[in-house]
Amino acid sequence: MNIELLNTGSELMLGRVLNTHQQWLCRRLADLGYVVTRQIAVPDTAHDIQSAVREALGRADLIIATGGLGPTSDDVTRDLIAQLLGKKLRLDDAVLNHIKRRFAARRLPMPKNNEVQALVPEGAMVLANPNGTAPGLAMEVSPNPFRNFGDSQNSRSKTWLVMLPGPPRELRPMFDNFVVPLLRREFPLAAPFVCRTLRTSGIAESLVQEKIEVPLNTLAAAGLEIGYCARTGRVDVRLSARGGNGKKIVRAAEVIVQKILGAQIYGFDDEEIEVVVVRLLTERKKTLALAESCTGGGIAHRVTNVPGASAVFPGGFVTYSNGSKQKFLGVRAETLAAHGAVSEAVAREMAAGARSQLGADFAIAVTGIAGPGGGTKEKPVGTVFIGLAGEFGTVVERKFNPYERETFKEVTAWQALEMLRVRLVCS
Amino acid sequence: MNIELLNTGSELMLGRVLNTHQQWLCRRLADLGYVVTRQIAVPDTAHDIQSAVREALGRADLIIATGGLGPTSDDVTRDLIAQLLGKKLRLDDAVLNHIKRRFAARRLPMPKNNEVQALVPEGAMVLANPNGTAPGLAMEVSPNPFRNFGDSQNSRSKTWLVMLPGPPRELRPMFDNFVVPLLRREFPLAAPFVCRTLRTSGIAESLVQEKIEVPLNTLAAAGLEIGYCARTGRVDVRLSARGGNGKKIVRAAEVIVQKILGAQIYGFDDEEIEVVVVRLLTERKKTLALAESCTGGGIAHRVTNVPGASAVFPGGFVTYSNGSKQKFLGVRAETLAAHGAVSEAVAREMAAGARSQLGADFAIAVTGIAGPGGGTKEKPVGTVFIGLAGEFGTVVERKFNPYERETFKEVTAWQALEMLRVRLVCS
Repeated sequence: MNIELLNTGSELMLGRVLNTHQQWLCRRLADLGYVVTRQIAVPDTAHDIQSAVREALGRADLIIATGGLGPTSDDVTRDLIAQLLGKKLRLDDAVLNHIKRRFAARRLPMPKNNEVQALVPEGAMVLANPNGTAPGLAMEVSPNPFRNFGDSQNSRSKTWLVMLPGPPRELRPMFDNFVVPLLRREFPLAAPFVCRTLRTSGIAESLVQEKIEVPLNTLAAAGLEIGYCARTGRVDVRLSARGGNGKKIVRAAEVIVQKILGAQIYGFDDEEIEVVVVRLLTERKKTLALAESCTGGGIAHRVTNVPGASAVFPGGFVTYSNGSKQKFLGVRAETLAAHGAVSEAVAREMAAGARSQLGADFAIAVTGIAGPGGGTKEKPVGTVFIGLAGEFGTVVERKFNPYERETFKEVTAWQALEMLRVRLVCS
Repeated sequence: MNIELLNTGSELMLGRVLNTHQQWLCRRLADLGYVVTRQIAVPDTAHDIQSAVREALGRADLIIATGGLGPTSDDVTRDLIAQLLGKKLRLDDAVLNHIKRRFAARRLPMPKNNEVQALVPEGAMVLANPNGTAPGLAMEVSPNPFRNFGDSQNSRSKTWLVMLPGPPRELRPMFDNFVVPLLRREFPLAAPFVCRTLRTSGIAESLVQEKIEVPLNTLAAAGLEIGYCARTGRVDVRLSARGGNGKKIVRAAEVIVQKILGAQIYGFDDEEIEVVVVRLLTERKKTLALAESCTGGGIAHRVTNVPGASAVFPGGFVTYSNGSKQKFLGVRAETLAAHGAVSEAVAREMAAGARSQLGADFAIAVTGIAGPGGGTKEKPVGTVFIGLAGEFGTVVERKFNPYERETFKEVTAWQALEMLRVRLVCS
């Protein structure tokens, strides 16, 4: 089965917004056992939208289009698709009333523009939008006049075309409430799909492959697929299989990889390091305090993204200035004078100070040079000291992360949480 | 000129990673006056990659492909493109030596796998990669056997095909060092392209359009293009034009929109609210302290993403527990008992406490219920109080952001910074 995503929006082509729909929709679909075969994004122009839809109709059994359903003059997807398929637009009274009520609830008059959002192509289903004015639309293109049977991997002559509004909080519930039931009804799975991702740290992509490939040979012959995805210092290993034995094959592969890579596996599937750390702390009934200089709240932000973090995280300090390091963490003036704010000694005092100030079991402290300014020959931009304090005492690691500012913060936050994870797992 | 981006990676189709290349490349290209006409992403399978490349060759003058140049078995882009174009692969000794040296520098043996990264299609240029093992590749497909002259908007019979490695810190410098000069040489601009984005807050998309459309009519007739991009509580207005008068047209449009929307414009182009706030604080020589409960460091993280933040941001507190609110911010036990941690009174004391503790000119405090748990009938999940303290005293606003946890944090952080921006601009 071919599923294609089509995002429309000239702002995407200008790089003004980050497209998060593709990841969200792909992940949701993959969890349900459906794999997207192509993602396409085009500007809001008639030629581009119509040729992209026509081509996608040539290949796909299901097209999920997003964006272009708003009230402004660059929201043209609805009209262009209706035109391409030779369908008239009709004004849907129920939709119009919904839009009017939304404005009335906020005591605003409905701008005339918004009326276009109540136009529905002939034969299309309206997908209610409780979170916005634009309804979604779903239509079965049957027969599909653009279908390219020469290249297709199946022979369906019909294609479902779903149009969802662009804002994530409108799109996401609409996908769950309408698209998921549609998928299950129109495209029931022939065989289950199983996928498991093992997330590793501290080992290069090619070395991961070298270590696990031969031991997985037999399973690969039985249908196991192995994929790799590398980021700085991390490699995800994706194990997947289809069919009745899929679950057994993936499970057997997981056991083999776990035996080989051990504690270098930090998490599974979508688990981020902060989720793992909050889970480990919760299981062990331990708490964590933070003292952040160069990461500037980035670690606290990640930890507090995890539901339930409040049970293990009493709080943290963002001590950007020397004064705040002294006042709140008890870093000594002599230490700052002798070693500088970016030093092993200061990281050590920050970690110990945060731990005692917040009465936590563990404390992480980071002090470094995020750049672009502030580097020296001995401590160039990218230098960072990460301290970890606990019952065992305080340890400090020096790292070098010579990346631009945001990547520096992200990589450093990751390393700090990984340092705590290894300590929690291995002690 | 048609430019297409092609990202390969099965992990993209499974939603395991967020694709940030498209935004980065599109923005860089737009800044240079080139607009991408299509973004495509496909899985790492021969059929999908080859058909996507073949189709892109039908339409595009320049194709920038990313990913699939690594050393593992799912890195197949190089081979598949060479095969499609009927080019042999040769082992490039200089590339092989570069890869060997990189491993030697880290005192590691080169895994046999990495040798494939030194394979170069006949006639392709090698783009050096100082930040990784995979070199980039650039080749002119001339004549382009797949070109679809029927649909194309120009008649070039040649297409440049550039392949860049997937990791951002390898891709980005390679784009700047090799692709930009290639663009300037092979595709010089006929007419300058000018684009300006005005970022507004607190006004609905359809209302923005209603207010500015008629006053911009004359300029639109002269070639001005207007685009809108809405997010929660914010609308970007994009003004663009091409040609010799483009700069004048866009400038005139900007003046008109500024007159109409005034202080509802919070920033320009890619300026995020935190960049604006740090700039305003810097100009006014003022400092900001933070006291975050429900945003959990998210505001500090945004502020410290801005280079130069250290001059205006001495530090902040992440006070997740009641105890830390009392101990570090001086929130009174009676206030917590009488009103609860999520209350106007606590937000007020947190803001005032952070301001005095850090000796800052301003302090922002937030306390709310991020969810998923913790809501009550009077204070449902999404309720938040934002306090702003300054020389003028302390003000508190109550907001309701009933979104999932991460969106709640993001929207709340945004509102808090916007509250400070309005105070800085209007006082």
